[in-house]
Amino acid sequence: MAKGFRKKIHQENTENSGFGSRASGRFINKDGLPNVRRRGINVFNRLSWYHTMLNLSSFRFITYLVVMYILINLVFAFIYYLIGVEHLTGIDKSNPLDEFIDVFFFSSQTFTTVGYGRIAPVGFMASLVATFEAFLGLLTFAIATGLFYGRFSRPRAYLRFSDIAVIAPFQDVTALMFRLAPYKNNALTDADVTLSTAIEINEEGTVKSNFYRLETQLSKINTLALNWTIVHKIDENSPFFGFSADDFKNTNIEIIVHVRAFDEVFSNTVVQRSSYVSCEIIYGAKFISMYYPDKEKDSTVLDLDKINEYQKVELKTSDVQRS
Amino acid sequence: MAKGFRKKIHQENTENSGFGSRASGRFINKDGLPNVRRRGINVFNRLSWYHTMLNLSSFRFITYLVVMYILINLVFAFIYYLIGVEHLTGIDKSNPLDEFIDVFFFSSQTFTTVGYGRIAPVGFMASLVATFEAFLGLLTFAIATGLFYGRFSRPRAYLRFSDIAVIAPFQDVTALMFRLAPYKNNALTDADVTLSTAIEINEEGTVKSNFYRLETQLSKINTLALNWTIVHKIDENSPFFGFSADDFKNTNIEIIVHVRAFDEVFSNTVVQRSSYVSCEIIYGAKFISMYYPDKEKDSTVLDLDKINEYQKVELKTSDVQRS
Amino acid sequence: MAKGFRKKIHQENTENSGFGSRASGRFINKDGLPNVRRRGINVFNRLSWYHTMLNLSSFRFITYLVVMYILINLVFAFIYYLIGVEHLTGIDKSNPLDEFIDVFFFSSQTFTTVGYGRIAPVGFMASLVATFEAFLGLLTFAIATGLFYGRFSRPRAYLRFSDIAVIAPFQDVTALMFRLAPYKNNALTDADVTLSTAIEINEEGTVKSNFYRLETQLSKINTLALNWTIVHKIDENSPFFGFSADDFKNTNIEIIVHVRAFDEVFSNTVVQRSSYVSCEIIYGAKFISMYYPDKEKDSTVLDLDKINEYQKVELKTSDVQRS
Amino acid sequence: MAKGFRKKIHQENTENSGFGSRASGRFINKDGLPNVRRRGINVFNRLSWYHTMLNLSSFRFITYLVVMYILINLVFAFIYYLIGVEHLTGIDKSNPLDEFIDVFFFSSQTFTTVGYGRIAPVGFMASLVATFEAFLGLLTFAIATGLFYGRFSRPRAYLRFSDIAVIAPFQDVTALMFRLAPYKNNALTDADVTLSTAIEINEEGTVKSNFYRLETQLSKINTLALNWTIVHKIDENSPFFGFSADDFKNTNIEIIVHVRAFDEVFSNTVVQRSSYVSCEIIYGAKFISMYYPDKEKDSTVLDLDKINEYQKVELKTSDVQRS
Repeated sequence: MAKGFRKKIHQENTENSGFGSRASGRFINKDGLPNVRRRGINVFNRLSWYHTMLNLSSFRFITYLVVMYILINLVFAFIYYLIGVEHLTGIDKSNPLDEFIDVFFFSSQTFTTVGYGRIAPVGFMASLVATFEAFLGLLTFAIATGLFYGRFSRPRAYLRFSDIAVIAPFQDVTALMFRLAPYKNNALTDADVTLSTAIEINEEGTVKSNFYRLETQLSKINTLALNWTIVHKIDENSPFFGFSADDFKNTNIEIIVHVRAFDEVFSNTVVQRSSYVSCEIIYGAKFISMYYPDKEKDSTVLDLDKINEYQKVELKTSDVQRS
Repeated sequence: MAKGFRKKIHQENTENSGFGSRASGRFINKDGLPNVRRRGINVFNRLSWYHTMLNLSSFRFITYLVVMYILINLVFAFIYYLIGVEHLTGIDKSNPLDEFIDVFFFSSQTFTTVGYGRIAPVGFMASLVATFEAFLGLLTFAIATGLFYGRFSRPRAYLRFSDIAVIAPFQDVTALMFRLAPYKNNALTDADVTLSTAIEINEEGTVKSNFYRLETQLSKINTLALNWTIVHKIDENSPFFGFSADDFKNTNIEIIVHVRAFDEVFSNTVVQRSSYVSCEIIYGAKFISMYYPDKEKDSTVLDLDKINEYQKVELKTSDVQRS
Repeated sequence: MAKGFRKKIHQENTENSGFGSRASGRFINKDGLPNVRRRGINVFNRLSWYHTMLNLSSFRFITYLVVMYILINLVFAFIYYLIGVEHLTGIDKSNPLDEFIDVFFFSSQTFTTVGYGRIAPVGFMASLVATFEAFLGLLTFAIATGLFYGRFSRPRAYLRFSDIAVIAPFQDVTALMFRLAPYKNNALTDADVTLSTAIEINEEGTVKSNFYRLETQLSKINTLALNWTIVHKIDENSPFFGFSADDFKNTNIEIIVHVRAFDEVFSNTVVQRSSYVSCEIIYGAKFISMYYPDKEKDSTVLDLDKINEYQKVELKTSDVQRS
Repeated sequence: MAKGFRKKIHQENTENSGFGSRASGRFINKDGLPNVRRRGINVFNRLSWYHTMLNLSSFRFITYLVVMYILINLVFAFIYYLIGVEHLTGIDKSNPLDEFIDVFFFSSQTFTTVGYGRIAPVGFMASLVATFEAFLGLLTFAIATGLFYGRFSRPRAYLRFSDIAVIAPFQDVTALMFRLAPYKNNALTDADVTLSTAIEINEEGTVKSNFYRLETQLSKINTLALNWTIVHKIDENSPFFGFSADDFKNTNIEIIVHVRAFDEVFSNTVVQRSSYVSCEIIYGAKFISMYYPDKEKDSTVLDLDKINEYQKVELKTSDVQRS
């Protein structure tokens, strides 16, 4: 951190960030979640397994389901085996392994309620266990239905942020810019953005973070269909006023972005957060346009692969700003 | 586009449309979605298949389900056939085709968990595949349940917009009008409308679109049960002030409509967008009333078929406006 | 309607009711839905069957499901019967009726995917139909799951309005009052109320309705746990200023109520509307308190049966008001 | 209650609490629900069984499901038994108990749609009952699916409030403080708090409760990831201005807290309420910090077990305040 910066910043630091000045590390992770670990209480009370299942990748989610299916069937197969295969009809009794295989398949046919009947329970205990296995099976699939629907219908903004922010010339000063674009076939309207920053300062030997609100040139747009470049003008109202390229490099800065929009398909408000730290800010660069008319001139094409494309520009105004 | 129009428009163009001035073609399609095509990234990342399934027509949705059901059963039938029909009981082994037909039906009985048991797996491999087919079947129907519910419960405004907008006499000037009506048995309250326009202008040889906000006479209503005629008065605050019939015909104009209301059944905010381009604006016409008291005078009837009915009127005020 | 009333009303009539002045009959029904019938378009496009299924009473909903279940099974039984009972195993072929009964039960065992297998398809056509019946069965239950969930989870305010409104003395004038109370174990907070009125007037021979906003003494409360008495003070700002008991009786008045609150269980905004017409307004009455401390003084009891209880009071101020 | 307090309080009491002055006992229970019992109407109309099922603990919910499953099967077993076991194939007819056990298992195999077929209906009545039992089974599991999903997806704030509030020194006066922290892996943003208090006073012999709004130092924060200490400064605008330790002990005070935040996973607004009564307020104490940087200094740790930890402090300012 660079000492003495505190006096350069004219704006009062805001207290409503929700982070204390003694918090450490990045505040908001790149994926938008706060960089906080919780301790205490019981881990089961601390975790919402439903939130967890909703945030898993599709691959891991399916894997979990399959593994659980096999485990449950193994457990029930073991129970049926202990009860005795003589309580089931149609079991291949040539050897213990074949017996176990058959009760395993009987278990799966019960759990999924297929119930071919080639193997069927005859004794009391086997019938009773089968009664509860079928019940458990149906409840499990009821829960799975809820999880699938919860995963599908979870409203998300599906915004892609540029990996980097740039400090570019803007009007007669400079501005901090980054951009975002919707990358899925959802339809977002009434988008607005809130920008704030945490700057680590050295105040009389104590390292602490101050939080500042950052003004944006255009904080609301009607339709979020093309890319949206967020522009924070670095004028005398900005906490970055007078920062040189080195200041941006050597100070621990974190730009916290909060985008909110209305998804027309789900009729729901969706939000997405991200953050940029010092090493993700490029001093003296500007973005290259990422949309263009299509050949027939009757539609607009948005090229999402260009979201991080920029070109270097020279910033001469920095000295002027500082004086 | 008509050159020289720029100087006629007094209002500043707004920048928060979300569309750049270099975008081309209609901005908002008639169905309310932005006229933007996305490129880049992977197509699977770019498409939200859930959004896609929600937007399909009922007929196509059901067709997809049936086709998928047949395909899955064909695949599994093929697998069982490869494993060998001797691993299934009750197969009609008179000829290969009958064998395949029987394994196909066995597959469907497993996938749907009917499991009559006339045909049942006896060997290890056939039992194992059946175990996973039944599991897959249940997950598939869990997903289908989510899709059905997602389709039903998706909050929608169910508004019908008039196909055309008219320029009609209004008070002592003229006004641009179009109307909308709820056509389903949902109950909308607290409706509000936002109107803006894109006008293509020729500025020093470059064709670009400017965006303007359009004021409406009444932008909020309490109950959206009858039709609602949106009225934009063409006075000196309107970007269309002084436009002649030819101007409306020859300029690329797009009126963008955004309606928001509260659905009392779903307790959710619903939105619907639409747009009118130059060829959908009729100069010198007014709408004919589409509601009337019923015979017993104890209720009001809204005739949705009349939504596009209008009659020609002469507009004499246009010359006055222009001067 | 009473002629000449128009001049008594000082307030400007509002235009944002959403009802035209030519609408007839009660505007909002007692259940809160607008009194409008739609015509035109196709009836299937006009009805949202999902909205319809959500609004059915539980009894009718269950009845519909059962009737549909029987009908579907009859149709499939008929198809299997046409295909021929020789394509099914285990059919009791003693006489045509027994045959039909057995194919009916086979159909139901397929549709519900029970599939005992005592009766099972052997021929191609019967197997094929069974394949689709099981598929249809699962989709039907997927839809039923969605409907059940939609019905349960539909956020509703569960407010009971008093059947009548009263004109009671209030401070030094009179006030129109009615009350409402939550009658279920939901938890409502941040409630607000909007009140408006439609008064039918005779303007130069034409009967039309004017709409006025009604001020309320307290339009927002934090917790809606006890009853809430809505009070509209009839002072010089009220459109009812100077109305006598006869005026209230002889004029077509409709008080439209719109309550909005936040349900803490569903975390959703819920709304409920109701209306009072002239014959539901009692001139010279006041409500009797409907809550009291319980015996142990450690809780409050709300007696919902008392919601309509009132006592007559004499209003002497009416003449004073008029002058 | 302490008499004479009324004159100390400068602030006007607010009327929008929703509780009448004659309500008794604690207003808001510790769990956030209002302390009101409803009477009248039918108990079935008064209870929303869906709200009830959503609020049950997981253990009781599962227990209810299992008990209901057993009861339904007992009822159907009884019906089949009455119809006669000769209408079912494969029944073990050695003695009445074995017969009943077998029809019980037949019932469960029908209700869950397993349908092994070892026991299967042959007669008309048994088949008919089985037809409806399978139908009922599917509907029951459709409802169970809805309940599971409703329980999972119910948006909740998952906030833990400190059990106690403290009166601590703050700036140059004292302040009432309590704290809250999110204890699950949900992500809350845009949190705001509303604070009010009910103070029981003795006004000319009548005991009644007055309600006052309490100002907070910081009523909104952007990210609710760490703990949040709510601070109500006891200055001349506070109804507690001049209260001594004894006043806090001897007066019936209730602090009502209402927190609202936006859950990013469910994209929904969530609320949570709580309340503090006199005996839960500790005079002369301050909270101990419950978060700290982790060892690597790259993240912040929130220790939820410390939420109630405080240390005693002496408050000397109370006499000054009073004068």
